[in-house]
Amino acid sequence: MTTTDKVLAQLDAHFPAAQARWMDWLRIPSVSAQPAHAADCRAAAEHARAELEALGFTATLRETAGHPAVVAHHPGPGGDVPHLLYYGHYDVQPPDPLELWDTPPFEPTERDGPNGRRVYARGAVDDKGQVSMWLAAFRAWHEATGGMPCRITAVIEGEEETGSVNFKPFVKAARDELRADVCIISDTGMWDADTPAISASLRGMTYMEVTLKAASRDLHSGMYGGSALNPINALTRALGELHDATGRINIPGFYDGVRDIAAGKANQWASLGFDEAKYLDDIGLSVPVGEQGLPALVRMWARPTADICGIWGGYSGPGTKTVIAAQASAKVSFRLVPGQDPDAVAEGFRQFMQARVPADAKLEFTVFGAGAGLEMSLDSPYMRAAQAALAEEYGRPAVMIGCGGSIPVVETIQGELGLDCLLIGFGLNGDNVHSPNEKFDVRCFRQGARSHARLLGKLGSM
Amino acid sequence: MTTTDKVLAQLDAHFPAAQARWMDWLRIPSVSAQPAHAADCRAAAEHARAELEALGFTATLRETAGHPAVVAHHPGPGGDVPHLLYYGHYDVQPPDPLELWDTPPFEPTERDGPNGRRVYARGAVDDKGQVSMWLAAFRAWHEATGGMPCRITAVIEGEEETGSVNFKPFVKAARDELRADVCIISDTGMWDADTPAISASLRGMTYMEVTLKAASRDLHSGMYGGSALNPINALTRALGELHDATGRINIPGFYDGVRDIAAGKANQWASLGFDEAKYLDDIGLSVPVGEQGLPALVRMWARPTADICGIWGGYSGPGTKTVIAAQASAKVSFRLVPGQDPDAVAEGFRQFMQARVPADAKLEFTVFGAGAGLEMSLDSPYMRAAQAALAEEYGRPAVMIGCGGSIPVVETIQGELGLDCLLIGFGLNGDNVHSPNEKFDVRCFRQGARSHARLLGKLGSM
Repeated sequence: MTTTDKVLAQLDAHFPAAQARWMDWLRIPSVSAQPAHAADCRAAAEHARAELEALGFTATLRETAGHPAVVAHHPGPGGDVPHLLYYGHYDVQPPDPLELWDTPPFEPTERDGPNGRRVYARGAVDDKGQVSMWLAAFRAWHEATGGMPCRITAVIEGEEETGSVNFKPFVKAARDELRADVCIISDTGMWDADTPAISASLRGMTYMEVTLKAASRDLHSGMYGGSALNPINALTRALGELHDATGRINIPGFYDGVRDIAAGKANQWASLGFDEAKYLDDIGLSVPVGEQGLPALVRMWARPTADICGIWGGYSGPGTKTVIAAQASAKVSFRLVPGQDPDAVAEGFRQFMQARVPADAKLEFTVFGAGAGLEMSLDSPYMRAAQAALAEEYGRPAVMIGCGGSIPVVETIQGELGLDCLLIGFGLNGDNVHSPNEKFDVRCFRQGARSHARLLGKLGSM
Repeated sequence: MTTTDKVLAQLDAHFPAAQARWMDWLRIPSVSAQPAHAADCRAAAEHARAELEALGFTATLRETAGHPAVVAHHPGPGGDVPHLLYYGHYDVQPPDPLELWDTPPFEPTERDGPNGRRVYARGAVDDKGQVSMWLAAFRAWHEATGGMPCRITAVIEGEEETGSVNFKPFVKAARDELRADVCIISDTGMWDADTPAISASLRGMTYMEVTLKAASRDLHSGMYGGSALNPINALTRALGELHDATGRINIPGFYDGVRDIAAGKANQWASLGFDEAKYLDDIGLSVPVGEQGLPALVRMWARPTADICGIWGGYSGPGTKTVIAAQASAKVSFRLVPGQDPDAVAEGFRQFMQARVPADAKLEFTVFGAGAGLEMSLDSPYMRAAQAALAEEYGRPAVMIGCGGSIPVVETIQGELGLDCLLIGFGLNGDNVHSPNEKFDVRCFRQGARSHARLLGKLGSM
């Protein structure tokens, strides 16, 4: 029995306890976007810190200008073993709209699904669930062998869902402490429940809020309709032009730097046989949107998008209010691909809006976060170790995929710490990430933890 | 001293009590649009019923399919005097947004303004304040003479702000009881604080809510952006096309039946010397919107409009949520002019939206109310009496104006009861009707009550 086999046996024998720790963490409503949850964010950080300390790490909370980060170090066995940086986040998306949850978002609930048991909660997979997998792997190594097979630095931040605005400067300031040989991140997805995947790219994001202000107060739509600027009319008129008739985004310069996808990658993605009709049918849709003439995976992994994530203004209560509101607002997320400049996109959106509103409209913008699209290094001993670990766990090779989502700090980890990132995630498309009824299959959690345990063994014996 | 002079002296002597009764009524949050305020609506009706009963009326609450109506009768002095129908409403608009009120909307507060004291509250003018004026005139006649100089029916409804949807059928059913010689309504405005006005037209309204549904749940904008329909993108795209570049409304058939304004009326309105620049400057704007090439008063009184009164969808909390919402909604009010068919406008809007949304978008519509634009009769002994009463009170003739707003039941009063309506209102442009910090100048209230007392005298001696 190899050491890794012993570790896997230990993990399996104590799996219920690992699941219980994961579910305990999910009970803490660590919504980073909402100031009312600041204390919960700190409690979620402390929960992770205590867990790492119990596993032989020196673990501390570090203050940032926002929510604290957890930083923990384990010396490993000494000698010439790799130094691994694990990154994850304890913060979660707001659970709204609450009325669409079948069970409360912060009361994790286990229910049956097609692939066995599932845990439903906000953060079930993103990212407390995925971080809990590598914590479970650490614990199995700790309990089975008394230590870790590699030198490890673990960092768990609290602002990933809000763009890591305060965490990025923290990483820069702590660059000497956080430097390692490679960064390992579980915040992405599998191809399907039987097929592991490694993400070779991430989209970046510029996320902005725009407010259009008109009159100094709300107005009677009868007395002022026909004379006074209506900010909702003006906002919908401008935002309605975000896309042209072919699905391309109308912002000047938006596509500057966007590269055509390489033929090799296009062919590899085509070979995956993605069934967009089923993908859409699962969410009640039938007709793809986005740029015309491009394959689905290219649209989702390698092309930028513009989505209005929220809009509000005027009266939204029951019945009628005949009002011309004083202002209206929207939140817009731009998913970016490598080559686009996130700040230039923000400036382009400002100009796009300014060019489309009437003279009296006063526009105010907030940029909540801006990060570039990124490509991962595919050729490294760490990547080969990850591929081998996944192949052993699943009995089939990992597929190399793109990721339409964003992990804002990866750019900083690549740029400031100079590290390749291994994006090995275990979520599924149907996990309702960022949606009501977020869930994680217990099977995915278990095999993800086992994969991490295997990967540690492989990296420790490199 | 004439009888009317005695009545006016009585009114002046007891004015503080009249103001106190008005302010007591304002304390009842009778928001008809919001089911939570149903009991408050009933309490506001009962308040008016008791007041009328104290003035010698037989006054009862009448159930409708919505909020109750107050109906009261006074026999008058007998003999060949006119039978007057006074119409008003006790319901008010929702006070939102609450945070913009300087004092709570249902705690009426008296403060100084350029024209003397003002009372701030939701409903201060619209319409509890204006109804309180004629109640004060009734009381002055009652206290000074022991009765009314005319036969009077008073009806005060509770759903004007939601389109009188249930009150209109009530009027039809009670047509024999409510029939009179002329209808008197105070729910419109003066030209300015020194110049009385009679409104010769009302715009109608079709008020609709539209909901655009897309996926079966909220989606992660990274995982689905580029493939899944975003209902906010689609809703803004469609609503953004409501107007063309010249300010005309793009709905097919929308202008069917709209007549050019008669030269005589156009000249009369031009002679009023309306200062649109000042009108807009008072609300922080400088550039008129609406149809290009038309004078301001024509745009506001004699042309239809389309205003989005509310819009909502997705995440509107602090910070970011990277979500593609499952649905988005908007409320749209169309102000209509005589000749337009309100139901055809509703159907046109349905077709307009349906033609502009992607195949997967499911549209749902609610029509909250539909009433036609109306012209008043300008040539009647009642109109001449009203003009004389106003001229005596203000020392100058009343100007004949249009009204950009709507009083839904007037169409029913004209059509079902066959009555001319005298629209004699005492509000000012700056009264913040339907807005935060609604107010009514005490001077306007006092002269309005005196004008009503004079009018009763004139009609009683016709």
